[in-house]
Amino acid sequence: MSEALAQACAARMWDGDAASRSLGMALDAVAPGTARLSMTVTAAMLNGHGTCHGGFIFTLADSAFAFACNTDGMASVASHCTVSYLRPAGLGDRLVADATERHREGRSGIYDVRVTCGGATIAEFRGHSRTTGARLLDAPDAA
Amino acid sequence: MSEALAQACAARMWDGDAASRSLGMALDAVAPGTARLSMTVTAAMLNGHGTCHGGFIFTLADSAFAFACNTDGMASVASHCTVSYLRPAGLGDRLVADATERHREGRSGIYDVRVTCGGATIAEFRGHSRTTGARLLDAPDAA
Amino acid sequence: MSEALAQACAARMWDGDAASRSLGMALDAVAPGTARLSMTVTAAMLNGHGTCHGGFIFTLADSAFAFACNTDGMASVASHCTVSYLRPAGLGDRLVADATERHREGRSGIYDVRVTCGGATIAEFRGHSRTTGARLLDAPDAA
Amino acid sequence: MSEALAQACAARMWDGDAASRSLGMALDAVAPGTARLSMTVTAAMLNGHGTCHGGFIFTLADSAFAFACNTDGMASVASHCTVSYLRPAGLGDRLVADATERHREGRSGIYDVRVTCGGATIAEFRGHSRTTGARLLDAPDAA
Repeated sequence: MSEALAQACAARMWDGDAASRSLGMALDAVAPGTARLSMTVTAAMLNGHGTCHGGFIFTLADSAFAFACNTDGMASVASHCTVSYLRPAGLGDRLVADATERHREGRSGIYDVRVTCGGATIAEFRGHSRTTGARLLDAPDAA
Repeated sequence: MSEALAQACAARMWDGDAASRSLGMALDAVAPGTARLSMTVTAAMLNGHGTCHGGFIFTLADSAFAFACNTDGMASVASHCTVSYLRPAGLGDRLVADATERHREGRSGIYDVRVTCGGATIAEFRGHSRTTGARLLDAPDAA
Repeated sequence: MSEALAQACAARMWDGDAASRSLGMALDAVAPGTARLSMTVTAAMLNGHGTCHGGFIFTLADSAFAFACNTDGMASVASHCTVSYLRPAGLGDRLVADATERHREGRSGIYDVRVTCGGATIAEFRGHSRTTGARLLDAPDAA
Repeated sequence: MSEALAQACAARMWDGDAASRSLGMALDAVAPGTARLSMTVTAAMLNGHGTCHGGFIFTLADSAFAFACNTDGMASVASHCTVSYLRPAGLGDRLVADATERHREGRSGIYDVRVTCGGATIAEFRGHSRTTGARLLDAPDAA
């Protein structure tokens, strides 16, 4: 895997990723097997307890996971994810999600994502990926 | 637990839940320990693979879980959740999430949520809740 | 699926399952998509806190899961499992694990197992299975 | 946390841990927040597919998790665990489980355990712990 391929994959993913963009996410960094995305909690993300709905924290982590597991030119999708909420997030908080590769072999991968806010851990996420068999990038571009 | 209390809790939760409303969710049904919510996949929910971003499927399930575990007058929050993606969802799909109580004892609960589209299962979600010790509704209203 | 096939699969599995037998498990019931196994906590299963080591509770649940997901003639194996410990078990406790099918489609399955002791829930387990492509029973026997 | 306290906790845990010893586990190393245990797959650990029953792989990982989360003098127990089976283990394989601390704050902890055999990953485990409020060691010994 190379930095250039990871960047090309991320650019391709980002172009089509209306979901991450619609939530105001920023793609801060990407490299082979890793990605960092960030997002600010808006009023539209608050739940009935007045804190950020866990679904949006999960979605940020899930996006970081998706970018991290799609850095080698193959299309990978999430098959199973777990999230532990460790601390609530509030209006205006800037959340940062760092995804790292824990395991990758054959068509299966495991990625860990830590979501933080100003250094404090908000959530821990683990995602399991599977490659679909399709290429994310055409061979010439990927080379 | 009573139906009336469950309805009152859901109404209180829904009023403050900007997140679920901003995604166009509908609260279709609620009863002690159960809830059904539905949502249509919009263009803003599509990911880089052209299917519904898993985070939005998770968020729908998480909302159904939240309503189901907040039907007894006590405030409960999610501590840990897992989701398995079984089938992709596409633009315009109407997703339905049915949450049921699997376990509730002391301050801990486990709830299962199935997300379907026209009868086909899209995802299976399991949520673990903890009561915060606070009341969701004041005692007089809750009685 | 039929009851007879489920019974034949379980008999084949049980014959080879030194692990379940060595722990003193009993195969109490099996039917398409479900299985019940039980086991008594022995002194050799106690951990440093003086209660049953969670691994043995998990192993009982995992065996029930294995029997439940191998009732249709195809060989299935566990790919991912989760367990929540809800109550400790002690020396001499008779643990009962009931596995039921939550989802089965193509090569993937999800099974829920509840471990109880005298009616009280000890643990909740969820197992994800995948068929290997091999047959557990030869076609003539399976018919 | 200190190395000496971690060693003292592990010694106390090991003395009472009939379960880990009865399965032939060895406590190879322990330090604040980490532990390494190993175990050889015996004939009594084989399942109906002729490979090591996942429950024993889980139990080895669970023991490593237990030793890692009990290195600060407070008694901690497992509340929720997940395991992903990545490769089967066979008779005679020497399995090594390395547990490391991912998160620890207040009464909650998250620990990751990788189970390997000769460098190949057999399973990835994640355990969530909670301290019980009791001390594992008396204050004078722990100091």
